[in-house]
Amino acid sequence: MKKYLVNLEYDGSDFCGYATQPHENTVQDNIEMVLKKIYTEPIKTFGTSRTDARVHAKDQYFTFEAEKEIELGGVLKALNNLTKPSINIKNIKIVEDNFNPRYDVVSKEYHYKIMQAYNPFERKYAHYHYGKLDLDKMNEAATIICGTHDFTSFCNVKSAVNDKVRTVLSLKVVREEEFIVIKIIGEGFLYNMVRIIAGVLIDVGMDRIKPCNVREMIELKDRKRASKTMPPEGLFLIKINY
Amino acid sequence: MKKYLVNLEYDGSDFCGYATQPHENTVQDNIEMVLKKIYTEPIKTFGTSRTDARVHAKDQYFTFEAEKEIELGGVLKALNNLTKPSINIKNIKIVEDNFNPRYDVVSKEYHYKIMQAYNPFERKYAHYHYGKLDLDKMNEAATIICGTHDFTSFCNVKSAVNDKVRTVLSLKVVREEEFIVIKIIGEGFLYNMVRIIAGVLIDVGMDRIKPCNVREMIELKDRKRASKTMPPEGLFLIKINY
Repeated sequence: MKKYLVNLEYDGSDFCGYATQPHENTVQDNIEMVLKKIYTEPIKTFGTSRTDARVHAKDQYFTFEAEKEIELGGVLKALNNLTKPSINIKNIKIVEDNFNPRYDVVSKEYHYKIMQAYNPFERKYAHYHYGKLDLDKMNEAATIICGTHDFTSFCNVKSAVNDKVRTVLSLKVVREEEFIVIKIIGEGFLYNMVRIIAGVLIDVGMDRIKPCNVREMIELKDRKRASKTMPPEGLFLIKINY
Repeated sequence: MKKYLVNLEYDGSDFCGYATQPHENTVQDNIEMVLKKIYTEPIKTFGTSRTDARVHAKDQYFTFEAEKEIELGGVLKALNNLTKPSINIKNIKIVEDNFNPRYDVVSKEYHYKIMQAYNPFERKYAHYHYGKLDLDKMNEAATIICGTHDFTSFCNVKSAVNDKVRTVLSLKVVREEEFIVIKIIGEGFLYNMVRIIAGVLIDVGMDRIKPCNVREMIELKDRKRASKTMPPEGLFLIKINY
């Protein structure tokens, strides 16, 4: 019995998210259906990040174990031939038995892309924001969010997690080509945390709230006090560091 | 009664082409449905190019006439609010009564995009070609295709057009970022002509046919002698010059 680590990317537009859901079209379901064909037995996979519906990943991982030993180049090819065209399997390798795709993560990077001029070709890959955004103010608020805090105000109330303390290692707002990109690196994130942080930074950029109000927003530990959750289209899981 | 010229772009992925078809989802149908709402009367539009299903346009035009005079900024806004998100209306202006969106075109530019490393985010915007392509040979063949020829071999047999003589003003194969892009400028094109030319150039790039065979292919005036029609995903109508 060997353990395999698979690296992949996917366009999340047509999926109901990464993780298995009953009667839903998810990335994990599509992959497990294909692995079952390849290994001729049910294969359970364990993913690194549970990206939401319509969220994209340029760097995602999962592990699986299998009795049968099949040449890895062949498995990679079969996975790419049989999974949906919106999934691209980049690599597959053998890992130690004790490797955990979730708990061995050191940090993750997400990007939230915003377009200020509507581009129909980017409608599934960037959030359209009409009007100006003050990047200096957004970056001022970003420095307040950085660090270790109880992020209850920045977490979907449906989350079942008790400990809402997380560490944001880096948060920057930059201009890249025609986009404004919110780049965040953290050890781990709460449910909807990146999309709520994007909402707060956009409110600051529009001058609806002041950077100094963000500190209060964190301290109140109340989801209702922070900004709305931004739509999923602009969100990319960019990099997972092990 | 005034005549209006509208400039637009669209992601063709979810459309059955530009031009109206019974019981089909086309760009023209969506626009005419919206214009009818705006002007509260049926409005007939006349497009410049009949792009096929899943072909994209970064520059397309149509004209329409209307009795009612509505402020053009408002029409532009309403068109963008009410048409599908894959359509972006860029501009609208009044033109002379005798302006013809099709016959007044001086030249058109199309690009055919090819990716050699599979990128799931580009699957609807570039054709995936596995294996090497010799750009020098492709450009050698391109110079043979340039000029005025009877392009019968490069035209879908279903075409109802009698005169198949067309002039290709420029044809180049270039590397742009991770893509190979076939760029063609002509006064006008036959049905599927750009996608068949792309097929010929790819066959040359793969060394399946020699550049010098392309001259013979043209002279034979037989669709069966040229390469296959490439899929629509990589094709963009880039620029229309009036």
